[in-house]
Amino acid sequence: MLELDKVKEAKEVLSTIARKTNLVLAKFLSNKNNVYLKSENLQLTGSFKLRGAYYKISKLTDSQKQKGVIACSAGNHAQGVALASQKNNINATIFIPSTAPISKVEATRSYGADIRLIDGVYDDAYKAAVEFQKETGGVFIHPFDDIDVIAGQGTIALEIYEQLKEVDAIVVPIGGGGLISGVAATIKQIKPDCKVVGVQAQRANSMFQSIEEHKRIELKNVNTFADGTAVKLPGELTYGFCEKYVDTIVTVSEDEIASAVLALMEKEKVVSEGSGALSVAAVMFNKIKLEGKNIVCLVSGGNIDVNILSRVINRALLKTGRLSNLTIELLDKPGQLKDVSTIIADLGANVIRVRHNQGGEGTDINDCYLKISMETRDFEHFYAIKNALIDKGYNILSTVQ
Amino acid sequence: MLELDKVKEAKEVLSTIARKTNLVLAKFLSNKNNVYLKSENLQLTGSFKLRGAYYKISKLTDSQKQKGVIACSAGNHAQGVALASQKNNINATIFIPSTAPISKVEATRSYGADIRLIDGVYDDAYKAAVEFQKETGGVFIHPFDDIDVIAGQGTIALEIYEQLKEVDAIVVPIGGGGLISGVAATIKQIKPDCKVVGVQAQRANSMFQSIEEHKRIELKNVNTFADGTAVKLPGELTYGFCEKYVDTIVTVSEDEIASAVLALMEKEKVVSEGSGALSVAAVMFNKIKLEGKNIVCLVSGGNIDVNILSRVINRALLKTGRLSNLTIELLDKPGQLKDVSTIIADLGANVIRVRHNQGGEGTDINDCYLKISMETRDFEHFYAIKNALIDKGYNILSTVQ
Repeated sequence: MLELDKVKEAKEVLSTIARKTNLVLAKFLSNKNNVYLKSENLQLTGSFKLRGAYYKISKLTDSQKQKGVIACSAGNHAQGVALASQKNNINATIFIPSTAPISKVEATRSYGADIRLIDGVYDDAYKAAVEFQKETGGVFIHPFDDIDVIAGQGTIALEIYEQLKEVDAIVVPIGGGGLISGVAATIKQIKPDCKVVGVQAQRANSMFQSIEEHKRIELKNVNTFADGTAVKLPGELTYGFCEKYVDTIVTVSEDEIASAVLALMEKEKVVSEGSGALSVAAVMFNKIKLEGKNIVCLVSGGNIDVNILSRVINRALLKTGRLSNLTIELLDKPGQLKDVSTIIADLGANVIRVRHNQGGEGTDINDCYLKISMETRDFEHFYAIKNALIDKGYNILSTVQ
Repeated sequence: MLELDKVKEAKEVLSTIARKTNLVLAKFLSNKNNVYLKSENLQLTGSFKLRGAYYKISKLTDSQKQKGVIACSAGNHAQGVALASQKNNINATIFIPSTAPISKVEATRSYGADIRLIDGVYDDAYKAAVEFQKETGGVFIHPFDDIDVIAGQGTIALEIYEQLKEVDAIVVPIGGGGLISGVAATIKQIKPDCKVVGVQAQRANSMFQSIEEHKRIELKNVNTFADGTAVKLPGELTYGFCEKYVDTIVTVSEDEIASAVLALMEKEKVVSEGSGALSVAAVMFNKIKLEGKNIVCLVSGGNIDVNILSRVINRALLKTGRLSNLTIELLDKPGQLKDVSTIIADLGANVIRVRHNQGGEGTDINDCYLKISMETRDFEHFYAIKNALIDKGYNILSTVQ
C-alpha cells in the first residue's frame, strides 16, 4: 500500500530539487484523442529516476547516510542516485558493467559518484555491489522494488493531476515497474476513473507476461533497444501494484519504438531514449483503444547514446519510406548516370549518396551498378521513382527498406 | 522605435496561441556564469517565428485578411506564417525554393498552407512571390523587416524578464535581425543595464560586418549549416535596432555550432537547429566575456533535418575525440585482428565498425589493412590507444579526426 500522504511528502521534499516538467499537447498524436506529453526526459539527469532516488535517500538516518549508498545500474538509476547523493552531500558508489556506453559512465561520474566498472554484464556488477554492501554496510538503493523509491516516482502523478485535472488516461513505460507503481497507486487514489496503461517492449515483456500468468515470470533474455526497461524479473512490490492498479499492459515492437523516438525529435524537438518513447509508440501505433479522451504519455527519459540515435534515425527513415536505397544495373555506356539522376530529380527526390561501381564480386566483368540513397516523401513516392526507372528499361537489382 | 505597449499588446494577443516556453538552468554551461536556456525550439512550429507572424496577421484589416497572405521561405518563417494563418482562418500562399528539404516543405503543408515549389534558390522563389503578390493583392509577410513582426518577437523578452528578473545578459542568434531587434528594444526599455549580445555564423555574418562598417553590407555567399540565419543583407529596420540597442555581436564557426547542437541533445535532451544553437555555441566557446552573471541563451529553433542531424552528431563526435578512426597496416598472418582488438578493449574503447581488407588500390598484394571506428572518451584516450598499438609494432596508416 502506498499512502497518498507519503507521495505528497515526497513532492514537498522534491520541490526544490527536481524540475516540475512540462505537460505539452502533442498535436501530431492528437487525432482521436488529446494526447499530452509529460516530459520527464527533460528532468535533471535526463530521467524520472532522480525523484525516487532522492526521496529514498532523504529518508535515510544520519548514520545510514554516513556509510554512503550503493547502486548497480548502467543507466538512468545510476545518474539519479549519483545526483541525489551529491545533493545530499553523501557518498555514492555505483557499480556499472564494463559493457555500458561510455557516455552514461561519464555522465554518472560527472555527478561526483565513485564509479566501479565491473567486467561482464549487469549480473556481474550486481554481485560486486552486494559484496561491497556487506563489507561497508552502506545502503543499497534498489532501482524499483522499494516503497520510498515508488513514492518518489508517484509525485509525477500529482503533477499531472495539477496540470490537467481532466486527465482520462496515463500511459506509462514499464521496466521493473517502479514508475508505473507510483503513478498508478497515486492517481487511482485521487481520480479512480483515470485509466493507467502500461507499455513494454515486446522483447522485454516480463511484467506483461507476469500479469497474464498471474505470477512473476522471469525472462531468460531481454534484448531491446529500449535498454532502460530491459528487466528480466518484475519486483515483488511492483508486481503487486500492477496487479492491483494497472488497467492494461500493451507491447510495442523495436521498429515502433524507433519511429516514436524519431517522431518526438521531429515533431516535438525533444530527445527520448527507447524506453522513454514506449508510451508514445503505443499511442502512435494504436495499441490503446480510446477516443475523445485526454491521454497523458509519460516520456520517462532521454538518455540515449548519440551513436545509437544516429542508427535509430536511419532505421526509422527507412521504415517510413523517407530514406530509400536502390541498386540499379547499368550498361557500361556513357550517359546512364545522367539519365538516372534526371528521372529521380524530376520526381522530386533528393539524392544523398551515390556509389557507382564497375564490376565487383558477383557481377560480370562488363556489368556496372549504381547504388543510390535518396530522401523520399513516403513509400508511394519511392515506388513512383522505381517504376519510372523500370519503365525506362533499367533493371533494379535490389531495394532496401 | 518599438513602443513597449505594442510588445505588451502582442503578448496579450499571443497568450492563447503561443507556448510560454521554459527558461531552464543549463548546468553544463554554468561554470563562470549561471546560464539559462530560453527554449523557443520547443515553441509551436519549432521556432519563435510563430510569434511575429501571428501578431502581424492579427493586425491586418478584414479586407486584407480576405485576400490572404504570402510569404517566401524555406524554413521557420514558412511554418510560422502557415500556422498563424490557419489559426486566423485565412489563406496563406508560401513560396519555397525546390531545393528546400522535403521535411520542411511537408511540415509547412501540414499547417494547411498553399505551397508553391519554385525551381531554383531563394531569390527565384522570392521573385515568384512578388509576382503573385501583384496579381492577387495579398499581403506579403516579411520574415524580419517589419515592425509588427519585430514586436511579436519582442514578447520573448517580456517572458524572460518575468521568468528571471535578475537577468544580466541575453544572447540572441542573428539572421535578418528580427528576433534580436524585438528582444533588444524590449529589454532595454524594461531593464536598460541588461546586455544584449548577438551571435552570427562566421560564414553568414552580414549584421556583424554591417555594424563594424556602420552601414548595411550585403554578402555574396552565405553558406552555413545554420541555414535559418543565412541572410545576405540585414533589414533596414533591424539594422537600425541593432545599431541602437545591441551591445556586441560575436561570431562562431561551423564546428562550434555543431558541438553546441550535440551538447544540447546530450545534456538537455532537446533538438536545436544550427541557427538555434548559435547562442549556446557562443557561451560554450567563450566568446562572451562575463563572469558571475545570469545569462540567458535564446535557443531560437529546432527545425533541423534529421539527415543533417546524423551528420552533425558524427562530425561533433569526431571533433571532440569521442569517435575515432584508425587505419592499421597488418601483416597477413593469423591472430593480428585478435591482438589489435585486445589492445583496444583493454584500454576501454568500444569498437563500433571494422573493415578488414586484403589488398586493394594503393597497397601491395600481400598488404592487409584494418579500418576501425571506435567510441573513445576524448583525444587523450585515443592517443593512448594509438601509442599502445605503435608500441606493439603496428604501423598506423592514417587517423581521421
